Amino acid sequence: MNITDNERDAVYKTIFSRRDVRSEFKPDPIPQDVLERILTAAHHAPSVGFMQPWDFILVQSDGIKSVIKKGFEKAHAESAEMFDENKKQQYKRLKLEGITESPLGICVTCDRSRNGPVVLGRTIKPEMDLYSVVCAIQNLWLAARAENLGVGWVSIVHDSVFRDTLGIPDNIDIVAYLCVGYVSHFNEKPELEKIGWLPRQNLESVIHYDKWSSK
Amino acid sequence: MNITDNERDAVYKTIFSRRDVRSEFKPDPIPQDVLERILTAAHHAPSVGFMQPWDFILVQSDGIKSVIKKGFEKAHAESAEMFDENKKQQYKRLKLEGITESPLGICVTCDRSRNGPVVLGRTIKPEMDLYSVVCAIQNLWLAARAENLGVGWVSIVHDSVFRDTLGIPDNIDIVAYLCVGYVSHFNEKPELEKIGWLPRQNLESVIHYDKWSSK
Repeated sequence: MNITDNERDAVYKTIFSRRDVRSEFKPDPIPQDVLERILTAAHHAPSVGFMQPWDFILVQSDGIKSVIKKGFEKAHAESAEMFDENKKQQYKRLKLEGITESPLGICVTCDRSRNGPVVLGRTIKPEMDLYSVVCAIQNLWLAARAENLGVGWVSIVHDSVFRDTLGIPDNIDIVAYLCVGYVSHFNEKPELEKIGWLPRQNLESVIHYDKWSSK
Repeated sequence: MNITDNERDAVYKTIFSRRDVRSEFKPDPIPQDVLERILTAAHHAPSVGFMQPWDFILVQSDGIKSVIKKGFEKAHAESAEMFDENKKQQYKRLKLEGITESPLGICVTCDRSRNGPVVLGRTIKPEMDLYSVVCAIQNLWLAARAENLGVGWVSIVHDSVFRDTLGIPDNIDIVAYLCVGYVSHFNEKPELEKIGWLPRQNLESVIHYDKWSSK
């Protein structure tokens, strides 16, 4: 099956305009058919040994979102103390999540024992199943962008908050909590680039030829 | 920036026709502009705290590919012994890599100390930097598909083989080795699905609503 130049350009447009959304969520509900399409895209990610180790917990309850938001606030306060004084003030001013503003949260997990103990392709590198789940997340993120939906990955919450609130069994790993919803706009650049938190690296600086080269 | 319905459909076409390629590589070289585009797509993945912790070692040397291939053969033989007798025979017959047939290998790594010890968004979940690298890999994989290039992720090689052969420093984590090249065709279904290694799960079986549900 051939991808045309126009189709290729659409993929790049989607990749380059995808953002980690925190501030721009609108409350508009996500239509069922759109939700099914982005979940189907996630489910068609590559997975090690065709293991498909992912699960998606769709969070729509305001009560549950409030508990997760409180978990964020606690972890965020702990995190602020880790930065040096200069960065700490800037860090505290940043809006880093849209947990209660976005209409949908998706907790993405990894069942590391799915389909038995020996998984083709995971025999030497056990973390491959977690990486498969991240491939599913990136598929979902791009599919969402293609549907003009924003996604924000919230990583500043202790796993125990999700485990307790969502009833996730002990043998299931928590990989991500994603906020999903329509947005007022997509920022032209990543926020952390725009505010000067860190610059975008030159591509050439991360490319090596046949051997690792110190740059 | 709005994505049109046609552009959205192109993204889905790319996501659903992406394959993990092992057997179909052609030796045709990858034009420099195409290679730059897929690496740029990888470099525009989301990264925790805008850390951009990835590096890409482009492997074109036949000598280096041969050493990696030998590493695969050793790890593959070890792996075969882990399967029960029935699966072992099927496993041994599978072609699981295209290391020497593909014109380009890309070793993708993670520099976990890039930009200092405290990374925004990694304070609570330290593995976020590795997950950022996997997002870059999935961006590259989809961009490659959009360029009608196949990609195969080879995970059955010990990290030490890449570290020694490519001169990767001890403080750099090895995440993936990708084989990249034009292909005779993309399979309609994942090979492991086609041969009945495992079935594709029903999407509904991996979706939960507000709470984890045992299915």
